[in-house]
Amino acid sequence: MGIGDDAAVLSAPDGRVVASTDLLVEGFHFRRDWSSPTEIGGKAAAQNLADIAAMGAVPTGLLVGLATPGDLLVTWAEDLADGLAQECARAGAAVAGGDISAAPVVMLAITALGDMAGLAPVTRSGARAGDVLAVAGTPGHSAAGLALLEAGLAEPACLVAAHRWPHPDYPAGPEAARLGATSMIDVSDGFVQDVGHLAEQSNVRIDLESARMPDDDALRAAARAVGRQDSLDWILTGGEDHALAATFPQGTALSEHWTVVGRVNDGRGVWVDSRRFERLSGWTHFRGSNTRY
Amino acid sequence: MGIGDDAAVLSAPDGRVVASTDLLVEGFHFRRDWSSPTEIGGKAAAQNLADIAAMGAVPTGLLVGLATPGDLLVTWAEDLADGLAQECARAGAAVAGGDISAAPVVMLAITALGDMAGLAPVTRSGARAGDVLAVAGTPGHSAAGLALLEAGLAEPACLVAAHRWPHPDYPAGPEAARLGATSMIDVSDGFVQDVGHLAEQSNVRIDLESARMPDDDALRAAARAVGRQDSLDWILTGGEDHALAATFPQGTALSEHWTVVGRVNDGRGVWVDSRRFERLSGWTHFRGSNTRY
Repeated sequence: MGIGDDAAVLSAPDGRVVASTDLLVEGFHFRRDWSSPTEIGGKAAAQNLADIAAMGAVPTGLLVGLATPGDLLVTWAEDLADGLAQECARAGAAVAGGDISAAPVVMLAITALGDMAGLAPVTRSGARAGDVLAVAGTPGHSAAGLALLEAGLAEPACLVAAHRWPHPDYPAGPEAARLGATSMIDVSDGFVQDVGHLAEQSNVRIDLESARMPDDDALRAAARAVGRQDSLDWILTGGEDHALAATFPQGTALSEHWTVVGRVNDGRGVWVDSRRFERLSGWTHFRGSNTRY
Repeated sequence: MGIGDDAAVLSAPDGRVVASTDLLVEGFHFRRDWSSPTEIGGKAAAQNLADIAAMGAVPTGLLVGLATPGDLLVTWAEDLADGLAQECARAGAAVAGGDISAAPVVMLAITALGDMAGLAPVTRSGARAGDVLAVAGTPGHSAAGLALLEAGLAEPACLVAAHRWPHPDYPAGPEAARLGATSMIDVSDGFVQDVGHLAEQSNVRIDLESARMPDDDALRAAARAVGRQDSLDWILTGGEDHALAATFPQGTALSEHWTVVGRVNDGRGVWVDSRRFERLSGWTHFRGSNTRY
């Protein structure tokens, strides 16, 4: 039961509901001259639906608040709604309701809901020494795409597309919950930085082997195109891919969604190739967002 | 399970979740020089939690997105959070999560969640000829309070307080669902205008007797103070009180929460004292919100 009443009513068969909310503000999180409204909608939906998957839940619905200047074209809002609906469909969810308002700049407020399907929520605090660290998705693609755009380049197109509209691996989240993941996080700010949240909230040390991180020809080509030695910095610190990072008990039989890239140990912090990772270079909400555009 | 993870997990014992989202934008929906942050938070929570009650549901949780300029005082945000938490407590709910972002003006995105407790959701479309129309709450108090403020007056203080921070009658919503209400709506834009949504979506005519609408000494005193003949215009068209309007089968034994003020008939539109009500004077999102401040 959805749009046109005071509130939406969604199924929550598990008896619990998983809920996450995000704000996206024009000029800080997107630019209307850099991305199409469809892309902005798709990306906004993706980043919220990924938060649901990162708890191990199946996305069920999205509520969308849209604040706009009065002169915004109706077609722009329609295309935005189209992007939101497309990404919802990828995740198996639907837009269930929303609100519109006037505002001096375009602002989107997205709330995603999901269902645990009888599984225990996977938090950030359950990693234990001896667990393995694994990743689902392609960290670095969005950052590489942004670097290409900033250099005036359009190829490899898959990376530019990943920056404009990331496609998280939603089924990997509930799969991790079924496989007994001990902790999980949506990689929105940079892989090492977000794995740092797992280490901190689980009170463990996480050791990452950079050579095991997923790399590919597109990333290597992008690095060459912009004159970088390699793509590792993008992979370790690039944000907005909405990959999932999770820890599993050693010996867990993982599917092809997941690549083991490290190990949980006693101690503190994130260590990359046996060196403590100190650089703060992930996205931070008041700093990075202002300097990005 | 709440703040500090990718998403919140809330109980949804009914197997369904009721969800509503609203945007509030500085300069359009509130002014930092007119209302304290505690009041802004309380009012923002109230308007969303009332949407949940208007489905017949019990509010369970609130997700809060806050976008602010970088120079906003931390104490302002803390006081806002205090108002949100206070109103949640009144409704029996809790703040479960949120997001913060930079933005050129303060914007709030509030999502409220609720539980139907085994009852059927009360929509806007179930009113039938023969039903009675009833109201829970005090339509007109907020509009009268605004008129007092605009006239530089501070008394009756209860009306100014109602404008700054309305206190919806949350339990009246689930009670209406238990009593078999056929339709219900949160009065946010003005009583007649919102009852008009019930008439339109139920495809009926609703007849309202203005003399039966709740009036009181404070409203009458405010009318005199600003030189109005009576308070009826505030009562019929004032928004933001978050009273509930509902229809019930004739003969339903209503509690003291509810006052019968009219009747559902065959036909169309809202009729006040046997005259079709045509004036559009309730709050409209792009018009009224711009001219209000």
